[in-house]
Amino acid sequence: SRTIRLAVVPGDGIGQEVVAEGLKVLEAVLPADVKLESTEFDLGARRYHRTGETLPDSVLAELKAHDAILLGAIGDPSVPSGVLERGLLLKLRFAFDHHINLRPGRLFPGVKSPLAGAPEIDFVVVREGTEGPYVGNGGSLRTGTEQEVATEVSLNTAFGIERVVRDAYRRAQARPRKKLTLVHKNNVLVHAGHLWTRIFEQVGTEFPEVTTDYLHVDAATIFFVTQPERFDVIVTDNLFGDILTDLAAAVTGGIGLAASGNINPSGAFPSMFEPVHGSAPDIAGQGKADPTATVLSVAMLLDHLGYAAEAARIEAAVAADLTERTGPRTTAQVGDALAARVSA
Amino acid sequence: SRTIRLAVVPGDGIGQEVVAEGLKVLEAVLPADVKLESTEFDLGARRYHRTGETLPDSVLAELKAHDAILLGAIGDPSVPSGVLERGLLLKLRFAFDHHINLRPGRLFPGVKSPLAGAPEIDFVVVREGTEGPYVGNGGSLRTGTEQEVATEVSLNTAFGIERVVRDAYRRAQARPRKKLTLVHKNNVLVHAGHLWTRIFEQVGTEFPEVTTDYLHVDAATIFFVTQPERFDVIVTDNLFGDILTDLAAAVTGGIGLAASGNINPSGAFPSMFEPVHGSAPDIAGQGKADPTATVLSVAMLLDHLGYAAEAARIEAAVAADLTERTGPRTTAQVGDALAARVSA
Ligand SMILES: CC(C)[C@H](C(=O)O)[C@@H](O)C(=O)O
Ligand SMILES: CC(C)[C@H](C(=O)O)[C@@H](O)C(=O)O
Repeated sequence: SRTIRLAVVPGDGIGQEVVAEGLKVLEAVLPADVKLESTEFDLGARRYHRTGETLPDSVLAELKAHDAILLGAIGDPSVPSGVLERGLLLKLRFAFDHHINLRPGRLFPGVKSPLAGAPEIDFVVVREGTEGPYVGNGGSLRTGTEQEVATEVSLNTAFGIERVVRDAYRRAQARPRKKLTLVHKNNVLVHAGHLWTRIFEQVGTEFPEVTTDYLHVDAATIFFVTQPERFDVIVTDNLFGDILTDLAAAVTGGIGLAASGNINPSGAFPSMFEPVHGSAPDIAGQGKADPTATVLSVAMLLDHLGYAAEAARIEAAVAADLTERTGPRTTAQVGDALAARVSA
Repeated sequence: SRTIRLAVVPGDGIGQEVVAEGLKVLEAVLPADVKLESTEFDLGARRYHRTGETLPDSVLAELKAHDAILLGAIGDPSVPSGVLERGLLLKLRFAFDHHINLRPGRLFPGVKSPLAGAPEIDFVVVREGTEGPYVGNGGSLRTGTEQEVATEVSLNTAFGIERVVRDAYRRAQARPRKKLTLVHKNNVLVHAGHLWTRIFEQVGTEFPEVTTDYLHVDAATIFFVTQPERFDVIVTDNLFGDILTDLAAAVTGGIGLAASGNINPSGAFPSMFEPVHGSAPDIAGQGKADPTATVLSVAMLLDHLGYAAEAARIEAAVAADLTERTGPRTTAQVGDALAARVSA
């Protein structure tokens, strides 16, 4: 009999509610011979206010001993902007070397896109997760004065770019259309941009079947709304990936459906799965949040751990549920419906 | 009698064609007592290939002696990415301290948006033009090797932020809705982000009538497609402004209509007006390019030089033309139609 040691970090706001439904569906889909050992970790705004801690080393060590992490959402208006994001969410991504930040952009049948003409959207963004402008290498001088100067340094390494670019080529190679688009801004950020472009071309020689193209990030946003069907796999840097995947969520029917995986393919550290949405404090505790993004993140988690059939069952359940959705349902009702479908 | 000393930089690709129509409309709209003295400057890919120069100091000095610059488009696939962008376009913006990069996002009646449901869109993005990740402060180590490291430094100063933020408040104050949104990513880029946020709040105390809010750049892209009518004036950094204004062009009917001004409000240097679109080498020389964005940039130029009535006449002509557009027309036909309207 197999065991999944799952670390659960519900976090803030609607994180609690959506994670509960994610776990409900996970339990329902797992075969009888798989044991789920889940441990909940109290991290986020409450803990920060209580203890001043965001992610103590001891907790980091405990998390490390798990097969995967399911995360709800991090962030609360009562905590200064950046404290929990940098001190908890990004700290996890960096400490566990989650260099593949995987974010599918898929318009499910039956879901209304804000775009006219019901385009066919089915791409995946492979966002670099451990470099770029996210490294936290900034500072300020004469802080708080009229002479303040603030910097943010984007750090990019051939090593870090090559591994994410190769991962993206592999994913493109495995898909029917075999298309890979690099998005950057190499006409302005010439040093980082040329490094990305060079490695993109170099690794490309190993994948002769994959068709490639390049778009500046500004032009890419145009195609996201005018021609999203042109994309298959996109590889991009940490910040551009952040921006593009929220836009992707918007055009595919909203942030309530967008799943993500922060993946360390080596398995040296647990990978972490989370909805793309935030903690939405304005609707927290009201049972209004759509748990579908979390449920789809659970599917990515299962896929990562080798439970491909179970992941596919969750995706099919979500697809069916979205086609048949009628009136509004509570968070728990959506979770119940999906759990019923996967165990049927 | 008054004189406008105009420097014209047609540049590359469709730049030539659209600038010709812009000048046609400019000549048609100017009152008889205003003399237009325009000088064309040969800058761009051709000159680069001929002489290796992008923007010689002598040309920069000549340009400086003008009241304004009308620019077509810069960039050609025959020139390595970044050479003309950094060496010519950005050099002009930085040398002439164009700190207000003004980009209206307006859906004209009769224009089809890719968004469903014909939203009302009428906002303006005030993009900082002389700081942030655009300063060209990057480098690389072990270039071209497997150990390459490349950096890009975003530089942000209280001085630079305050002037653009104050300009944006003034514009918001002058508009009926009086709303100003700051867009940044202050939960990740904490140093630059907190500086922007601090100054935004500080300057806001001088404008008690202006309603303000803040959005992370990723969330802003969502609202651009789901709720663009929520925006009135947006102020943001150089890179976020670059991305958001292409997205704005997309949702307001395309890059063929998006105008921009690179403004130095002090008048110490000539301001520069250009369509947001690029040189589009694939359709260059075919008379297919829409010159409307350039014509609207001419309106911004006139407004900047104090010819508000003439600017308004161009805008009205464009609005009327867009409502009555039927089949496809050549670049020159659109220019002729607009010139006829403004002189009628
Ligand atoms: C909350 C924030 C730090 C995070 C990011 O910027 O990566 C979020 O926007 C995301 O996309 O997961
Ligand atoms: C061509 C490029 C340097 C430029 C920019 O990034 O500012 C363009 O995209 C723009 O928006 O005017």
